Amino acid sequence: MLETPREPFAWLEAAAEERRRAGLVRALRPRDADSPLLDLASNDYLGLARHPEVTEGAARAARHWGAGATGSRLVTGSTGLHAVLESELADFCGFEAALVLSSGYAANLAAVTALSTPDTLLASDAGNHASLIDGCRLSRARTVVLPHAEPETAGPLFAAHRGPALAVTDAVFSVDGDAAPLAALARVCREQGAGLLIDDAHGLGVLGAGGRGSAYAGGLSGRPDTVVTVTLSKALGSQGGAVLGPVRIIEHLVNTARTLIFDTGLAPAAAGAALAALRLLRREPARAAGSRQAAERLYEGLRRAGLPARRPRAAVVSVTAPSAAAALRWAADCRAAGLSVGCFRPPSVPDGIARLRLTARADLTVEQLDGAVTTLVRTAPVGQTSFR
Amino acid sequence: MLETPREPFAWLEAAAEERRRAGLVRALRPRDADSPLLDLASNDYLGLARHPEVTEGAARAARHWGAGATGSRLVTGSTGLHAVLESELADFCGFEAALVLSSGYAANLAAVTALSTPDTLLASDAGNHASLIDGCRLSRARTVVLPHAEPETAGPLFAAHRGPALAVTDAVFSVDGDAAPLAALARVCREQGAGLLIDDAHGLGVLGAGGRGSAYAGGLSGRPDTVVTVTLSKALGSQGGAVLGPVRIIEHLVNTARTLIFDTGLAPAAAGAALAALRLLRREPARAAGSRQAAERLYEGLRRAGLPARRPRAAVVSVTAPSAAAALRWAADCRAAGLSVGCFRPPSVPDGIARLRLTARADLTVEQLDGAVTTLVRTAPVGQTSFR
Ligand SMILES: Cc1ncc(COP(=O)(O)O)c(C=O)c1O
Ligand SMILES: Cc1ncc(COP(=O)(O)O)c(C=O)c1O
Repeated sequence: MLETPREPFAWLEAAAEERRRAGLVRALRPRDADSPLLDLASNDYLGLARHPEVTEGAARAARHWGAGATGSRLVTGSTGLHAVLESELADFCGFEAALVLSSGYAANLAAVTALSTPDTLLASDAGNHASLIDGCRLSRARTVVLPHAEPETAGPLFAAHRGPALAVTDAVFSVDGDAAPLAALARVCREQGAGLLIDDAHGLGVLGAGGRGSAYAGGLSGRPDTVVTVTLSKALGSQGGAVLGPVRIIEHLVNTARTLIFDTGLAPAAAGAALAALRLLRREPARAAGSRQAAERLYEGLRRAGLPARRPRAAVVSVTAPSAAAALRWAADCRAAGLSVGCFRPPSVPDGIARLRLTARADLTVEQLDGAVTTLVRTAPVGQTSFR
Repeated sequence: MLETPREPFAWLEAAAEERRRAGLVRALRPRDADSPLLDLASNDYLGLARHPEVTEGAARAARHWGAGATGSRLVTGSTGLHAVLESELADFCGFEAALVLSSGYAANLAAVTALSTPDTLLASDAGNHASLIDGCRLSRARTVVLPHAEPETAGPLFAAHRGPALAVTDAVFSVDGDAAPLAALARVCREQGAGLLIDDAHGLGVLGAGGRGSAYAGGLSGRPDTVVTVTLSKALGSQGGAVLGPVRIIEHLVNTARTLIFDTGLAPAAAGAALAALRLLRREPARAAGSRQAAERLYEGLRRAGLPARRPRAAVVSVTAPSAAAALRWAADCRAAGLSVGCFRPPSVPDGIARLRLTARADLTVEQLDGAVTTLVRTAPVGQTSFR
């Protein structure tokens, strides 16, 4: 009775101490608007986040429609701007309809949960993004995690399952930038009567004709059994996410997806910026190929120097590091030399291997790309260039 | 072997048919920027979403910082603007620190999941918002749902539990606008050594001195055992969410919350709009009381006419309807008469009872409020005015 009551968050100390010991403390580091650093860390693949047409798209939308959507999409949060964005996005990517949500994360939660029933078998690639994983956890379906990029493993699972089945995969995996074997996975799904949900966060604007994305590139867009999620926060330089698919599936999401029904609609400024970016991309389709070529040039330079870079399938190039500490030091040395790169360490890497994550942008010059390679090679951990 | 493969999304038809039969089909209805309707449906409690200072805050931020944050908060997505917003928001609400996320939904997922361990007992009010419920589902903790607004039921549960315990509640429940018994719940938590997580989505900007929120009003802000989530999408007229609490808790979230680590940072325009709204509210603190007075006036008018309205504790007034169909017809009749109101039906009401949800705004005139009451009374379902 007279025990001292527990201190409710005392357990946080042990977790913090553990992070300190492991050298895995993360802290926010606010940046300036105009950094002197060369940015190979953002996901602004087409260099559109600062493009005047895009920022004006945001400004104009805020002035015309207001700073916020003011309510859920089902109450006051659907504006004419949202409708136009949905229609142009669906059209661009080759789908019947689109539904815009407040983030790519929310779009993935919506798609996975609304497209599964308690009888569904979800087959989720081991390398999938956290938002797809959380979608699987939130769904009431049974989830089987498939070995990374081994689509044939889904076949027997689907064949043995009697209820609905859905394969869930990133199209371009976010950390390493490798591509899912979409054609093979789609074939398995078709054979087994399973649906296919593709997260194309890193493919939209980069892959497919003029940046129409991975599903379009693979001839999968517009199919009745295929649903794609995209984010507006990477190649389109804004914020928000969308689900693309057949009308009946979009209608189903409007009626059942919790992150649509119980979330405020995307802010008009974000919708306006994404729409401006989409129109710009339609007008200048070469930007998509530009981001891929930039990634290819980064990769070639790193490989020539003997660094363990992975061949990019989109605009992300990853280079493994011998340890989390080495990756951190490498990134810091790049920073000191004027280059900003992503540094991914456990627990946000699927395999426990730390790496630098470099993102190419369509607006980088050959000089900038080659300069970045020089910096990366010069600051590489000792012995690193001999890894292969 | 030669069976026809299943049609992967065939089950959607039955769900759609079920909705049609129950009269519960929802569809998006995009609105214009300048609607002729009087809006009692949005959550723009202070009328700031269209305020020129707020929309200019959005426009300026987009121009200066870019249309998107370009990456996760931990990579390139933290700008100086995010840091200023966090510091001013924490200061305003009386907390040590704040962490801004891309939505209130994401803030709730972050807070609930990061502040629970597999040994934690979560005690969640039965009326809690979907985002808190999803947070409980995503956490690995055991969740007990407490009867609505009966804080004393938590005591024996916490006393019998050996691991960490956390009470989770909306401060103002979103559908009915009733207030949680925060003082009593905080007392139980303190006695039992449990943490307290309060979602103040509908209290920020409305309750407490100058709109500092429910926790501030109850003397709970800044306590080491209390964490508050807020949204930037309601009284502040923008988009985004935040977690407010002690520095060590915010640091823990930065290191562990998946919807922070794996989500693109809030768009600068949304952060800029929220910051402008916050500063405006500091300068014009009477706006907060204005929204409450407007709600009170709506309520008084409806009660005088005998309508079953619920006394508002913040800026939300709910009126029950005899059936989902009656609620729908009532809302449509209001609309035809120039008044936009929220219509909540199963499954988005906790108790299965359909109702109209009216939101007051600080910028509504007495004439507008009284006119709205007249319309609501005139269009009320037959017999409705005799309910008490
Ligand atoms: C593969 C993938 N899916 C989804 C998301 C979430 O998108 P957003 O940041 O727009 O929420 C991300 C990145 O953040 C991602 O890399
Ligand atoms: C109580 C409550 N919490 C959280 C949210 C989510 O906030 P947001 O819409 O900013 O995601 C809402 C409303 O949408 C809400 O009513």
